[in-house]
Amino acid sequence: MEPEQKLQQLKNLLAEIEDLNYVIAMLDWDQQTYMPPAGAENRGHQLATLRQLAHSKLVSEEIGRLLDDLQPYVSQLDAESFDACLVRVTRRNYEKETKVSYEWVADFALTTTAAHEAWAKARAENDFLYFQPHLERILDLAHRYAGFFAPYDHVYDPLVDVFEPGMKTSDVKTIFNTLCPQQVNLIKQVASRPQVDNSFMSLDYDEAKQWEFGVEAITRMGFEWDRSRQDKTLHPFTTSFGWGDVRITTRLSSNYLASALFGTLHEAGHAMYAMGSDKSMDRTPLFGGNSSGLHESQSRMWENLIGRSFPFWQHFYPRLQELFPSQLGNVPLEVFYKGINKVQPSFIRVEADEATYNLHIMLRMELEIALMENQLKVKDLPEAWNTRFKEYLGITPPDNSKGVLQDVHWSGGMIGYFPSYALGNLIGAQLWERINADIPDLPEQIRRGEFSTWLTWLRENVHCHGNKFEAQQLIQRVTGSKIDPAAYMRYLEAKYRAIYNF
Amino acid sequence: MEPEQKLQQLKNLLAEIEDLNYVIAMLDWDQQTYMPPAGAENRGHQLATLRQLAHSKLVSEEIGRLLDDLQPYVSQLDAESFDACLVRVTRRNYEKETKVSYEWVADFALTTTAAHEAWAKARAENDFLYFQPHLERILDLAHRYAGFFAPYDHVYDPLVDVFEPGMKTSDVKTIFNTLCPQQVNLIKQVASRPQVDNSFMSLDYDEAKQWEFGVEAITRMGFEWDRSRQDKTLHPFTTSFGWGDVRITTRLSSNYLASALFGTLHEAGHAMYAMGSDKSMDRTPLFGGNSSGLHESQSRMWENLIGRSFPFWQHFYPRLQELFPSQLGNVPLEVFYKGINKVQPSFIRVEADEATYNLHIMLRMELEIALMENQLKVKDLPEAWNTRFKEYLGITPPDNSKGVLQDVHWSGGMIGYFPSYALGNLIGAQLWERINADIPDLPEQIRRGEFSTWLTWLRENVHCHGNKFEAQQLIQRVTGSKIDPAAYMRYLEAKYRAIYNF
Repeated sequence: MEPEQKLQQLKNLLAEIEDLNYVIAMLDWDQQTYMPPAGAENRGHQLATLRQLAHSKLVSEEIGRLLDDLQPYVSQLDAESFDACLVRVTRRNYEKETKVSYEWVADFALTTTAAHEAWAKARAENDFLYFQPHLERILDLAHRYAGFFAPYDHVYDPLVDVFEPGMKTSDVKTIFNTLCPQQVNLIKQVASRPQVDNSFMSLDYDEAKQWEFGVEAITRMGFEWDRSRQDKTLHPFTTSFGWGDVRITTRLSSNYLASALFGTLHEAGHAMYAMGSDKSMDRTPLFGGNSSGLHESQSRMWENLIGRSFPFWQHFYPRLQELFPSQLGNVPLEVFYKGINKVQPSFIRVEADEATYNLHIMLRMELEIALMENQLKVKDLPEAWNTRFKEYLGITPPDNSKGVLQDVHWSGGMIGYFPSYALGNLIGAQLWERINADIPDLPEQIRRGEFSTWLTWLRENVHCHGNKFEAQQLIQRVTGSKIDPAAYMRYLEAKYRAIYNF
Repeated sequence: MEPEQKLQQLKNLLAEIEDLNYVIAMLDWDQQTYMPPAGAENRGHQLATLRQLAHSKLVSEEIGRLLDDLQPYVSQLDAESFDACLVRVTRRNYEKETKVSYEWVADFALTTTAAHEAWAKARAENDFLYFQPHLERILDLAHRYAGFFAPYDHVYDPLVDVFEPGMKTSDVKTIFNTLCPQQVNLIKQVASRPQVDNSFMSLDYDEAKQWEFGVEAITRMGFEWDRSRQDKTLHPFTTSFGWGDVRITTRLSSNYLASALFGTLHEAGHAMYAMGSDKSMDRTPLFGGNSSGLHESQSRMWENLIGRSFPFWQHFYPRLQELFPSQLGNVPLEVFYKGINKVQPSFIRVEADEATYNLHIMLRMELEIALMENQLKVKDLPEAWNTRFKEYLGITPPDNSKGVLQDVHWSGGMIGYFPSYALGNLIGAQLWERINADIPDLPEQIRRGEFSTWLTWLRENVHCHGNKFEAQQLIQRVTGSKIDPAAYMRYLEAKYRAIYNF
């Protein structure tokens, strides 16, 4: 058989695997949006069956043989060509997946499905004990997963590699060690200044109008509704069932405007990144974007670099005031802008300001590492959370729902994900400096509600590459340097110096 | 290996196949409820991949061998035992499925996914030409499917057998030939009497309140919401993703009360039938109920035998009036009851009265048979529809949306399904006579809004058996006779004689 035919054969096999992955995502989306409570047991079985199928298909001898046979052929191709990247990424996935046992895959599906229901209940009822046995099982799964990749430099490495292929715990720690003191110092500087007011954010806001505003804003920003939709969930997320179907979810809070406002922008950023993959990548592992950190760079850019910027609200604030005249009619734009950028330690990560946000992440990563190193037991996690929270942010969560139970990730087995949020902030700022250098009048465009130049830049420089490169490679390619906290700190300092006058 | 172990092995394999079938149903549900328009292409691939997987797993040598090996063992079991029925039903499915080609399964998935989108568009835009090429492809698929089962008595037989295992075209024709003249005669008798008024059904009815009433009514009737949910669709249907997750959909029309009112009852009847399978049947081919005809007997019972009965409205009408005081406040119960039972030829099957309904079915069956016999071409279908409609019902559809494009079935490749609706009416009436004999004060219970005795009867005599018996067997077992139009005609005559005074 000619290499071209073998390549086509590989693509056919990968297309079926991606179909299964899309369907797994659909089942998960449904579980978090519409599934009736008693559906969880069936859903667990369905996910287990599909995950095992997807796993078996990927680790098949056929794929292994095709990858080996194709190696000489793709070595001659341009390393950045579609086919060379496809074979490289497939080989990486194949080599990782072959290490993982069939039983683990099924256990993971069944355990996380049950854990998600338990987490939702525990969070609603503020009862960690209800979630504890599930989290213990998930920790056990994480240990077993790491075990497949022994020997490793650090037991947390294989988990980080799921979300940031190519990165290690030590890489992340190095970055965070540089970042942390600078952020703490910035927070101290801000804390020494008179506080800004954001009490208007916590008035009574009609949820339907919040929804309407979010939809209007992201539509204006170029969101492609024919390939998407938005639904409500307990914890917002973005998911994708292929090039033509990338969905977002949001959470509305009638007494906190920021939840939906910035949450919708955040998820839209994820979705637009996935949608920006070249259509030829559909049904291949190149579709949908790069690492979680790169994904977060896009979502956090929509949410913060754009969504919490002054020019953005120069354009959108009149409309928001129009929707909420009694709440915002007497709040001037400048006051609103400062309010949405108020720096203040708070309990909920997704609602944290940009200065304190990364501390929420570092705390989680340290707890995950302690759990993985067996230095910390799940039963002691709430206390460890609260102690560390007090240490880092100076406040103690009033209950576990606002503390250790707030995030969906652990119930989904996503241990190792959190660092990507902070990395995303850093990458986003690096890209942002580059964009602003390339489009000098970007703030002026945003003020006019024009987002097409910005979006085209992202499409051409980041989105279209899908999953062709590793994160560090792509950032190097676009910005000229690897992940580096400097741009983020420059961005934060400039922003908060202006807001807090120091 | 011991037979018990082989049986367990078979059950494990069947559980995975059913997981795939449930997921296929979920993908279809999503397509009809929430999927964005551009998602159709991916959805087609996903369905094709899953249908091929489910097909391959069912026709595997392993299942064939297990069925053969288990035959002597199950022959010794009680023929009505779970295991004997499971092996019998699996063998029937296996033998049918092994005849069908792998390519056909993929073509079917891709073709029907595209056809559903085309149908929805054609219906909305009243443009048959847009749907025509899709329907031609579906007809071709139906012919190819029938071809797998040659030789047959009639080319339509294999299609009927999909929905009514064990029944043939000639069986259905025999039943319909007895039924048709009696129904026509009844309609004539009614037409000679003064007409009743139902103009109040077409006033402006708030959709949210319609939804509320439907939910209240089926909740009172025993609907199990923890295992279900309701969503809106273009064409209402019921679907199931396992014992814990059986969903209904409904269609609301702001200027026609009956759509949602009776549609919700109808789908709830389907859902309660599926939910009534014994939990041990979950993830086996015994789950979810028997043939389509038996399914329709349950839905049509909720919709008509109960839902269009006088005692039902003695209980529920005050609440409906409360929700719609300006529309119904001055309409007495007796007038309302007669109005919802008005006999009048109309265009839309799902909104047809009980006297004319079966004519809609016979018309469709005859057209399907003509198409399958190549006596009729798809391009000539709208004209044939309208001609026959005029002949049977005395009226001509004003456009194709109210004519040939009204139903979802053909776009879903469900040629051969329609007869089941009429059979369901007949079976429902047969069961109804039996129930009323067993529960003499049933009308009185219904008047008081008590449905538990009735539901328990259905659970114990029909629902719990799931798919253990063929339809004819089950009806024989419960009512003492096979499918027979007599009970239905007795029911209709008694009802309309009272309403129309003849």
